[in-house]
Amino acid sequence: MNTKWSLLEHQMQENGVHTLLITDPKHVYYLTRFLSNPHERFLAAAITLGEEPFLIVPALDEEAARAGSDIDLIYTHTDTDNPYLVLNQALKGSAGTIALEKNHLSLARFESLQEHLTFARYRDIGPWLQDMRVRKSADEIAKIKHAVALIEQVLQEGLSKVKEGVTENELVAEVEYQIRRLGADGPSFDSMVLTGEKTALPHGVPGTRKLQYGDLLMYDIGVYADGYASDITRTFAFGEPSSELTRIYNTVLEANEQAIRSIKPGASFASIDLAARSVIEQAGYGEYFMHRLGHGLGIDVHEYPSIHGQNQALLQEGNVFTVEPGIYVAGVGGVRIEDDIVVTADGVEVLTSFPKTLTILE
Amino acid sequence: MNTKWSLLEHQMQENGVHTLLITDPKHVYYLTRFLSNPHERFLAAAITLGEEPFLIVPALDEEAARAGSDIDLIYTHTDTDNPYLVLNQALKGSAGTIALEKNHLSLARFESLQEHLTFARYRDIGPWLQDMRVRKSADEIAKIKHAVALIEQVLQEGLSKVKEGVTENELVAEVEYQIRRLGADGPSFDSMVLTGEKTALPHGVPGTRKLQYGDLLMYDIGVYADGYASDITRTFAFGEPSSELTRIYNTVLEANEQAIRSIKPGASFASIDLAARSVIEQAGYGEYFMHRLGHGLGIDVHEYPSIHGQNQALLQEGNVFTVEPGIYVAGVGGVRIEDDIVVTADGVEVLTSFPKTLTILE
Repeated sequence: MNTKWSLLEHQMQENGVHTLLITDPKHVYYLTRFLSNPHERFLAAAITLGEEPFLIVPALDEEAARAGSDIDLIYTHTDTDNPYLVLNQALKGSAGTIALEKNHLSLARFESLQEHLTFARYRDIGPWLQDMRVRKSADEIAKIKHAVALIEQVLQEGLSKVKEGVTENELVAEVEYQIRRLGADGPSFDSMVLTGEKTALPHGVPGTRKLQYGDLLMYDIGVYADGYASDITRTFAFGEPSSELTRIYNTVLEANEQAIRSIKPGASFASIDLAARSVIEQAGYGEYFMHRLGHGLGIDVHEYPSIHGQNQALLQEGNVFTVEPGIYVAGVGGVRIEDDIVVTADGVEVLTSFPKTLTILE
Repeated sequence: MNTKWSLLEHQMQENGVHTLLITDPKHVYYLTRFLSNPHERFLAAAITLGEEPFLIVPALDEEAARAGSDIDLIYTHTDTDNPYLVLNQALKGSAGTIALEKNHLSLARFESLQEHLTFARYRDIGPWLQDMRVRKSADEIAKIKHAVALIEQVLQEGLSKVKEGVTENELVAEVEYQIRRLGADGPSFDSMVLTGEKTALPHGVPGTRKLQYGDLLMYDIGVYADGYASDITRTFAFGEPSSELTRIYNTVLEANEQAIRSIKPGASFASIDLAARSVIEQAGYGEYFMHRLGHGLGIDVHEYPSIHGQNQALLQEGNVFTVEPGIYVAGVGGVRIEDDIVVTADGVEVLTSFPKTLTILE
């Protein structure tokens, strides 16, 4: 039984919870190392206080669950079985007070649980998992590093297709080709390549715009690999950029570096955001940086915590998040530079290593 | 107000329901033409008996909702608003008996509804939508045809990369490249290309196996385009196939064609499955066709109905589903041939047109 289960058992004791039921496949993976998409079938990891954790998996996933998880006790159900009866038997008829994933469990499934399981009260397990997930283990950090290495290789390969007249869609297609060729699980979000004035749209959608000399070119891309996410943004100049775009670029770069220098255990998330924001404000572009500095990164590409100026929580060793300041001037262009970082015992390790000084592609 | 809303109002009257709340983004699209991924934000389409339908959308999606939907009444909420209060105001304080999506609504959201909305009883809207979705309109069929045309073009382009030594992953990467280049929304499921003995795995995972002469080569791929799915499988021979593989291929082809010939309004889904299955059984391969014949196709790539030997429901004009018999002999190879069809007033129209006779690639 790994430490994560021990932490959960501690929460169960503190909160008078007898049974824990995990139904989000990402959390089943987080707790058991079994990564699977059960589609509409029932998948759960569960534990009763003082007992060993167990899995309930669709019969056709049994072999994969035995090979992939670190759980010994595995119950299965075929498409004609009622998985709630299997759960009831595994819990020997009574769940006591149960903690479950209110944000993941559908109302239909909750009603099935009520129908087939005896439990007095129920609680939400969401906050406990959030607290656990925010500090990454060495094993998790290694997986995120691997996802970062893959996306940086994708970016390097993707740039080989940059030439005058190429469309955003063609550059995205090359990114997705490389993601697949390099064997990642897949993109961690819709791959984004924007050009010219479209770089001024923080959530612009790639299209048929053709790259031309003088454009900025922005890649915001990531992958899942072994269930963990990476997320990187780099902005390039295609041909000599205007002096305004150069000034914007160097301001964003300084904001990115200033934020990273301020990262250490005990600093507030707000202070990291403000470190970047003050650089941009001093350069006169404050109103053009209209989003938060970053977000947590792990089994989800966007996860807790949110790095913004109101988040007074303190950084802890093992936090992994993005640092992605940007300046977006409508009709002119936008620059964003995004790194993935981990908070270390005495500071920060930057996981992304792709060069950040302004690169002019020809 | 389109006919779909009228059908739902009829169900509301029949079932004593005063308010309808749609929260699955696919169903919001189905009913309003507004296609959006709200991530964790609240998105809903709703109607009160006798009133006009309305949308509740995140403020940042308002412009897209006004441009994309056929709904005039649009309420918005920012990230600091409580969307349930917005809903409560839109419903003027009381929902009466409410119908909602039990399979989509999370327990957390249901609790928020209970907290902020006055309603006496609640019902599941799932079956009503399922009944509506199973018969496609001319507009929906046109969208599916477009998705089919795109995936057939992807397949044609993808085959240009077939050569000795190419890996399954490389062929998948080319498929995903073409899906993106041609401007589809994205793949409708994990693109699958399998080679050699791996074609005997109905749900095999592409990897680093290299194509060699004498292999079978199977593509099972699809796209979403304008929110509608396509799904096609073709199996090819790379170099001269063995006589056993040739016999398997021609048996599957005959099963596919026999099933299609049996499609017409009023026939049972079971009879279509059995038409294909009897061809395969007569050829002595009955035990090697171990899955259902097909599945419904629409806003989901796998949707109701399921085409199998126990489904005694009757075909109706406008049903769209896949016909995909297969034979899988471990250690030898597998063949599957999958078409997408629509049931017409007096028979069937096959939407997929990629050639089905055994093609030998060199």
